[in-house]
Parts: sequence; C-alpha cells; structure tokens
Amino acid sequence: MKADRKQVERLLKTAKGQIDGVLKMIEDDKYCIDIVNQILASQAILNKASKEILVAHIDGCVSDSFSSNDETFQKEKMEELKMVIDKLAK
Amino acid sequence: MKADRKQVERLLKTAKGQIDGVLKMIEDDKYCIDIVNQILASQAILNKASKEILVAHIDGCVSDSFSSNDETFQKEKMEELKMVIDKLAK
Amino acid sequence: MKADRKQVERLLKTAKGQIDGVLKMIEDDKYCIDIVNQILASQAILNKASKEILVAHIDGCVSDSFSSNDETFQKEKMEELKMVIDKLAK
Amino acid sequence: MKADRKQVERLLKTAKGQIDGVLKMIEDDKYCIDIVNQILASQAILNKASKEILVAHIDGCVSDSFSSNDETFQKEKMEELKMVIDKLAK
Repeated sequence: MKADRKQVERLLKTAKGQIDGVLKMIEDDKYCIDIVNQILASQAILNKASKEILVAHIDGCVSDSFSSNDETFQKEKMEELKMVIDKLAK
Repeated sequence: MKADRKQVERLLKTAKGQIDGVLKMIEDDKYCIDIVNQILASQAILNKASKEILVAHIDGCVSDSFSSNDETFQKEKMEELKMVIDKLAK
Repeated sequence: MKADRKQVERLLKTAKGQIDGVLKMIEDDKYCIDIVNQILASQAILNKASKEILVAHIDGCVSDSFSSNDETFQKEKMEELKMVIDKLAK
Repeated sequence: MKADRKQVERLLKTAKGQIDGVLKMIEDDKYCIDIVNQILASQAILNKASKEILVAHIDGCVSDSFSSNDETFQKEKMEELKMVIDKLAK
C-alpha cells in the first residue's frame, strides 16, 4: 500500500474505536438516533481512509504503470480504477 | 434502542472484524485496491446496521410519539428525522 | 407538496438547465471530466430539492398524521419514511 | 468525450424528461414522496451517465496518456482522477 501507513492505521483504529463505542451505547441502551450518528461518524472516517489509499494508489501504482510501458500492467490498473469508480458512484 | 439488539451487534462486530482484517492487510502490505474493497465492504455492513436501527426507531420511538399526544415529544422526533435525512441525502 | 413550491421549482429548473448545458458540452465535444463535474453539480441541486421536499413533508404530512389520530394514516407515513431512508442510505 | 455519445445523450435526455415530469407533478400538487422518488430516479440516471463517461475516459484519455510518454499530461490525468474520486467518495 502506497498511502501513509501510520495515517491510514490511525484512521482505521479510530473507526474501530467508534464502533466499540456504538456497541457500548447499545449495551447502555442509549437512544437510537445517537447510535446512528456514531455509526455515520465511523463511516465518514472509513471514507477518509479509503480516499487516502486511493489517492496514494493513483500517485503510486497507477503512475508506476505509466513508466513501466507494460500495456498489460497498465490495462490492469485501468480496470481496477473503473471498478472502484463503479462502487463509489452509487 | 428498538432494533433487534443481537442482529445489530452482529453487524457491528462483523464490520469491526473486517476493519481488523484491513489492518492485517496493511501489515502484510497487501494491494491498495484490495484494501479499499475491504473498507467499502465494512461500510456497507455499517450501512445495514444504521438502516436496521432507523427502521426500528420509526416503528418504535416515532410511532410511540404518535400515541403520546405530546406535541413537544412529537416535534422532537420530527426534528431528529430531518437531521438524519439531511445526513443521509449527501 | 408542502415544500416552498417556487423554491423547489427554481432548483429543478436550475438542474434541468445544467443538463442542457451538459448536452451542449457534449455537442461541442468538451472534455470528459468537465462534463462529469457538471453532471455532479446538477445532482447536487436535485439533492437539495429532495431535501426541501422531505423536510417539508415531515413538518407537514407526517406532523398532520400525528394530530389525525388515524392509526392507518400514521402507519402509512411511517412506511413511506422507511422506504425513503432505505433509498437514501445507499 | 470518449463515451458513446448517443447513449450518454439518451440518458441525459431521459433524466431531463423525468425532471419535467417532476415539475408537472408539482403543478398537479402530487404527493411529496412520489415527487422525491421521481427525483431520485432522475439522479440514478445521471449517475449512469457519469459512469459511462468516466469509464470511457479511463479507457480513452487516461490510456492515451500512457502511450504519450508525456509526464505532464499523465500527471494531469492522475490529478483529475483524484478529484473525481474525492467527489464520488462522499
């Protein structure tokens, strides 16, 4: 993975901590809407992690494929990008 | 929380397990796109959890406010729904 | 519809005008990314229109159902809200 | 634009027609939720149009930049992709 490993790990661990927080809120029978808001917050952090990885992937793997002059490798990068865009553009 | 507690907890723990899986993938220096796909999968599960809670909230808390005839309480439910819809309709 | 009719119509006509703009950009063979950005802009405006209508719907139709004491009518409002939330929480 | 022009135009005109439909529904004072559903349908079609254009862009412009060996041109394509991904990954 080309992204800043420490930064991505920090984001993921924060999201995980928030999900633990949600599990605790359920245990403490907290209010539905507060629980949903906490889940939405963890999803936003996971979004940030995905973006960090994708941006570094484009700067790294995709750019590397440019200089590789390996058309199969390049084609592979393009197919991957199309699949990611298909998933993101819900 | 009005939703099926076991079901919501199962979804949240699955999402948490997937994030652990992502952290392991990063440790093992797995490929960026595979990591992003795993994060997207955990977000989809968190989405399911949110929906379960919101549906049960509408069936429960919002419906209860109907029979309460307490206008302040009802108004509060409406304001909450508007805030959730604002966040969801990105 | 309970929302401010003029405001919603203005948003919809703006979105429509932007789509006309996109059709013109295609005709003029403009650049792909510029075209996508214009489509995303029109979607954002349609989002605003949806939110205006939903907020006014909650303040209007759903609140009216509170005072109606008609359980069938109330249940109907709840089912509609659940369907909208299901569509929004992609 | 590299995408199938007829196909993209058809999608955009369909979305535009749906927005006209929404304006008519408002004029006829149709029900809020039915109006929102029609707007969501037009957004889904606009989404399809965006995806068609982005996929063809990757297959076309981005791939062309591969064979151009023009690093500035390639870098430009990468920056554009990052901006699109940032907008999509809401």
